[in-house]
Amino acid sequence: MFLVVLIVVVLVVENKMALAGDLTLDLVRDSLIRQEDTIIFCLIERAKHPLNAPAYDQSYASFPGFSGSLLQYIVQQSEAMQATAGRYENPEESPFFPDKLPHSFVPPFKYPQVLHPAGTSINKNKIIWDMYFNQLLPLFVAEGDDGNYASTATSDLACLQALSRRIHYGKFVAEVKFRDAPHEYELAIRAKDRDALMNLLTYENVEQMVKKRVEKKAMVLGQEVSLGNDGDKQARFKVDPSVVSRLYGDWIMPFTKLVQVEYLLRRLD
Amino acid sequence: MFLVVLIVVVLVVENKMALAGDLTLDLVRDSLIRQEDTIIFCLIERAKHPLNAPAYDQSYASFPGFSGSLLQYIVQQSEAMQATAGRYENPEESPFFPDKLPHSFVPPFKYPQVLHPAGTSINKNKIIWDMYFNQLLPLFVAEGDDGNYASTATSDLACLQALSRRIHYGKFVAEVKFRDAPHEYELAIRAKDRDALMNLLTYENVEQMVKKRVEKKAMVLGQEVSLGNDGDKQARFKVDPSVVSRLYGDWIMPFTKLVQVEYLLRRLD
Repeated sequence: MFLVVLIVVVLVVENKMALAGDLTLDLVRDSLIRQEDTIIFCLIERAKHPLNAPAYDQSYASFPGFSGSLLQYIVQQSEAMQATAGRYENPEESPFFPDKLPHSFVPPFKYPQVLHPAGTSINKNKIIWDMYFNQLLPLFVAEGDDGNYASTATSDLACLQALSRRIHYGKFVAEVKFRDAPHEYELAIRAKDRDALMNLLTYENVEQMVKKRVEKKAMVLGQEVSLGNDGDKQARFKVDPSVVSRLYGDWIMPFTKLVQVEYLLRRLD
Repeated sequence: MFLVVLIVVVLVVENKMALAGDLTLDLVRDSLIRQEDTIIFCLIERAKHPLNAPAYDQSYASFPGFSGSLLQYIVQQSEAMQATAGRYENPEESPFFPDKLPHSFVPPFKYPQVLHPAGTSINKNKIIWDMYFNQLLPLFVAEGDDGNYASTATSDLACLQALSRRIHYGKFVAEVKFRDAPHEYELAIRAKDRDALMNLLTYENVEQMVKKRVEKKAMVLGQEVSLGNDGDKQARFKVDPSVVSRLYGDWIMPFTKLVQVEYLLRRLD
């Protein structure tokens, strides 16, 4: 009896140490909250420029040895450059063009290996790309053309990477939730029951709170700060706070749950 | 007499139209104020990562056909890529490695030509680079190494570009001041009197106000925003507001005035 208790204690302590060293619910939550600021900063910076349609026009620019728009050129070239500098060695990063990536030229860094290996194959950047350009972008940039297509594409890339990192962080969310209560998930995983998993991962009240928080953040981070009396000034925000709330409600949180479900479905492989 | 008056009226109207179309003091001030937010966003994002010293170590990484640190690699490759996409056609942009830039592959965009042509040759990026890495960076990032060198270098590049754009905007500041009162500057310009020009460009009270404003911005934009009662929480900022105030007082504003003086010295060439 004493031995059994001892073994259980050792297992619990080991498990807690592993969680503390690698991944805890607090760390995951802190990262998600911090990433909200990054996403809002990126949107605010992209909104400095108008739409700048030529950046997305396949026939506008012609780069040697490349077929596509200026935006595609900047994204693919940047990803290739960052890949050689080791960006995608970090399991938090997912490339938009994984087929075109050169290998890293920097010594490997020992990122904590906390995810199930099957997590690597989950990449939702195709739907993130489509959502960003077809639905989100027209909601928060003005019509017009200021000629700064390279800066615009660089800002788009920053937005895409911030959204991608946030949504694929669902792998870490799912891992920490699974570790916290594996028995709750095992039945649904073995039954490959996506709906049951989605139900287990959905907390309506938490989602409402996140939408309210990011809306407030967009107001605070997107305001005009001056030395005058703040009470007098009209509220003008660099990005419409309701768009940020919708971005989370309609796309970021649903896409994150999709990542979580796909991750959990492979968690016992 | 009537003809003289008419000619004077036409000249004044034309001059005002040119200013309205291209450059006004209000537009310049708005841009400078908006760039403060960009600089603070960039510092906040860089501060997500610790110092990450290997990114600056010449012997750490080895890229084919390139000699230098990972940071230098990312900056030079990014500048080259953005140059082919037309970034440096905009007179507001100044490259850090102007000798290594390929030409643009995009159709030329008609940026308003408001600067004297001699402005193109003014590039203070060497002192901006040295200031950023040797003095500023250690003031606002933590010691440590999280392995994200590619992201870190990309954040550094964003900071460098935002600082460079702001400081070289001194050319536009000088141009609008000169147009507003050319006679005030002509004597000092013809005498090549740097000190007299510096005196004409220095408004101590305005500089104090800017330092206070950016400190306040760093508090607002770098705070932890939550849905709770804001009065209760301890003030914790993502970047020390006094560092941002110092960045403006010790470096950005003095460097901008240096750009202004050099621009004015060539304004009558």
